[in-house]
Amino acid sequence: MSAALADLKQRLAEIHDLEGALGVLGWDQRTMMPPKGAPARSEASATLSGLVHERFVSDEIGRLLDEVVPLEEKLGHDSDDASLIRVTRRDWEKARRVPAELAAAWARESGKAHVAWLEAREAKDFSVFLPALQRVHDVALRWAECMEQGDSPYDAFLNEYEPGMTTAEVKAVFDVLRPELTAIVREAGEPADDFFLEGDFPIEIQQEFLAGILRDFGFEEGAYRLDPTVHPFATSFCRTDIRMTTRYKPTNLRSLWAAMHEAGHGLTYQGVDPALGRTPLYGNASLGLGESQSRSWENLVGRSLAFWRGRYPELQRHFPQLERVDLETWYRGINRVAPGLIRVDADEVTYSLHIIARFELEQELVSGALAPADLPDAWNARMQELLGVDVPDDARGVLQDVHWTRAAYGYFPTYALGNALSVQIWRVVQQELPDLDAQLEAGEFGPLYESLRERLYRHGRKFTPMETLERAIGANAIDPQPYLEYLREKVAGLQTA
Amino acid sequence: MSAALADLKQRLAEIHDLEGALGVLGWDQRTMMPPKGAPARSEASATLSGLVHERFVSDEIGRLLDEVVPLEEKLGHDSDDASLIRVTRRDWEKARRVPAELAAAWARESGKAHVAWLEAREAKDFSVFLPALQRVHDVALRWAECMEQGDSPYDAFLNEYEPGMTTAEVKAVFDVLRPELTAIVREAGEPADDFFLEGDFPIEIQQEFLAGILRDFGFEEGAYRLDPTVHPFATSFCRTDIRMTTRYKPTNLRSLWAAMHEAGHGLTYQGVDPALGRTPLYGNASLGLGESQSRSWENLVGRSLAFWRGRYPELQRHFPQLERVDLETWYRGINRVAPGLIRVDADEVTYSLHIIARFELEQELVSGALAPADLPDAWNARMQELLGVDVPDDARGVLQDVHWTRAAYGYFPTYALGNALSVQIWRVVQQELPDLDAQLEAGEFGPLYESLRERLYRHGRKFTPMETLERAIGANAIDPQPYLEYLREKVAGLQTA
Repeated sequence: MSAALADLKQRLAEIHDLEGALGVLGWDQRTMMPPKGAPARSEASATLSGLVHERFVSDEIGRLLDEVVPLEEKLGHDSDDASLIRVTRRDWEKARRVPAELAAAWARESGKAHVAWLEAREAKDFSVFLPALQRVHDVALRWAECMEQGDSPYDAFLNEYEPGMTTAEVKAVFDVLRPELTAIVREAGEPADDFFLEGDFPIEIQQEFLAGILRDFGFEEGAYRLDPTVHPFATSFCRTDIRMTTRYKPTNLRSLWAAMHEAGHGLTYQGVDPALGRTPLYGNASLGLGESQSRSWENLVGRSLAFWRGRYPELQRHFPQLERVDLETWYRGINRVAPGLIRVDADEVTYSLHIIARFELEQELVSGALAPADLPDAWNARMQELLGVDVPDDARGVLQDVHWTRAAYGYFPTYALGNALSVQIWRVVQQELPDLDAQLEAGEFGPLYESLRERLYRHGRKFTPMETLERAIGANAIDPQPYLEYLREKVAGLQTA
Repeated sequence: MSAALADLKQRLAEIHDLEGALGVLGWDQRTMMPPKGAPARSEASATLSGLVHERFVSDEIGRLLDEVVPLEEKLGHDSDDASLIRVTRRDWEKARRVPAELAAAWARESGKAHVAWLEAREAKDFSVFLPALQRVHDVALRWAECMEQGDSPYDAFLNEYEPGMTTAEVKAVFDVLRPELTAIVREAGEPADDFFLEGDFPIEIQQEFLAGILRDFGFEEGAYRLDPTVHPFATSFCRTDIRMTTRYKPTNLRSLWAAMHEAGHGLTYQGVDPALGRTPLYGNASLGLGESQSRSWENLVGRSLAFWRGRYPELQRHFPQLERVDLETWYRGINRVAPGLIRVDADEVTYSLHIIARFELEQELVSGALAPADLPDAWNARMQELLGVDVPDDARGVLQDVHWTRAAYGYFPTYALGNALSVQIWRVVQQELPDLDAQLEAGEFGPLYESLRERLYRHGRKFTPMETLERAIGANAIDPQPYLEYLREKVAGLQTA
């Protein structure tokens, strides 16, 4: 290994360490920290992330990246070292485009907007949030001007989360999904009962049941945790330190799918090639690919009939009140299709419609066609159009999500891309594993995890999302058809189940 | 405020943030981290602490310290800013004496010695630990050569934990304690029964009981936590984020005093003047002064008759098996005096004898009079001499403590100094609060906490330990007599209780 590459790797390893420390601060803040520790924690996180940025955008990293060009050309594109250099150069060039002053302003205005948003939600009044939103929106547009411009300024935002993907490509996928999903919602007919998901579900028993699921999914003993939090997330500092969270309520069972969702993220971390540890290649190639896996384990596993055929008796033993609910009723209930107001409560069919609404509004915001002040009216109209629901107040409408407090445009679409990708990948795994349903029923998740690990997880951030998809399943574009087909089959099956 | 002072403060605030982050990493590692996260955590902590050191010993900090000299002279000695400058200069000059290579070697050899120590304890064989101990010992002696030399090289070690205190001063205190404590052990006579501390004590009930104690001690709601760990400790990132730990076993009640001990540390953090937050003045003036408070809340409160007169009925309600044990029997049991092998299990009388043995051995190690290889024999002889016990194996002897894995000479004596200081300060508080016993019985800890906060805690690290003691109680030296008097009275009382 050349001295320059060794030097570059050492610097990147140290930056990875500091990002890991930042990750621990964030995890602690959201799971363990006494609430009054928040102001000091904000300062510590800001100092540490400023330091990470400063070290990463240094001229020295640029000089080393230049020095290793001949080496990179000699190494094959797929080698770990060439990928490290390539991905680091892409990250570095993007990071260099943002003046420190602008990054700091974005962080500062986001913090203020978060506070205003909490107040506005409490007051159910968008106007409380508007001035802060306007400021963070303006900073975000200034940021977009610094970035490489594709066909539209929205591309710059999208590129943060789906490197290489264009607004036009996302739009093409969503243009297929929009009418088809609306049609499937109609086909689904009257929503099934799911009243049995509410009731008396002691948290310790939920925890015990979930512990068994995570163990069976294939997490390595002594290398992960599952903790309660308010807004569930997963994070990881190395493939043997994976932190997942869920939200328990003693009055319903919805923690189960939140936990399986985060477990899907967790498995993508566990599956990264150990050789990529302590490098910037540890992680997922994009948010959409990451989300495809959280959705796979939450929905394709965790809402499947095969899975519950095996697991439901155990759940009934944990919660005897479910003995009155038969498997078919349970299966229909947990897959209930019903247009609603809240994205995070949405079913598999309507979920992507919530996303499409946000994607359309974001594009209008970024292009200037829609002013932040006009967002509530536009929101309410779009929800009526796409989901047929009347928004009763801003808290259950435009204020429901945290993402716009930091003007994180381009983030939402990755959720729907993840839905489409999840089934696109799953279809290929199903062909590889003809006994998959029987395995899910038997609680044998090893072959599924191994297939996904080998195809997808092990690559980490080595390749672009589309290069990764190519290696995983031989496709080089997102195809929404398998997802639509899966939903149609499922909806049809629910009616006859 | 001058620009130089503002710049200095900003740099120190950022260093404080990074040290806080390091503290979170350490807390997480000892309470929450999945065990397989350890190697990555070691790397992250090493990177972050290297960075803290690098930023602190920078020429820039030195230049700013020079620039603020005129300002410092204008400000009064007791002002926050003059104290900040003075303490920072002391810390900076000490840190600058240690070459980065030596600091790294010490950290590295300590890590290896820790692993060897764990193996040696398991094997009950000191020889497994010896080679690693020898290496870390040699590094520590090289370190001492870099430091300012007082009358003895041991002064350099001591100065790390008790700034300004000399080996001769410690020795003078211990020369008084040594024969007197031995005499008190004899006076104590036959050890009381404490069999009732072992039994069936469900951890959740211990937690609930302790939660009530911490609340009553005066911790601010939403600003602290108490978690289980293997070796209890307390840490804090700001005065509204205090993390305490204890060690629960379902088979005994010893977690109570471990928790009250750590709560004492926690209260010293909570009591620091808020103006000293996010500066190097946040914390305790010395380990001895810190320990004086953990011992106060553990022993002077938590093993007092007054405290249990009020609290024992509640404990009996939590653990009904204690209804067969009357208050006097309980009080005698929790204050049982009996020479033993293990420091952390020692009672109030014999505890300091364990420390004196280590202090004497450390001085011989540092002077070269004792070779590391000869430590076990010297240990066993000293334990026989001071405590009259036969050491059956190295695990229950010379290998019992972790401190020498990092050659942290000078650390142990602060425990015994803390014992002496605790009563020295307590006597003055008793004069101020004539109703203290009645308050402890009533569970009213407010006046006690307020007195200690006002006298001691609020100063943080502003002053040297002796300057702090002077401000707290008007004394300028450690006086072991109040402590001896307290023990004699207590032992006499136990026999007639």
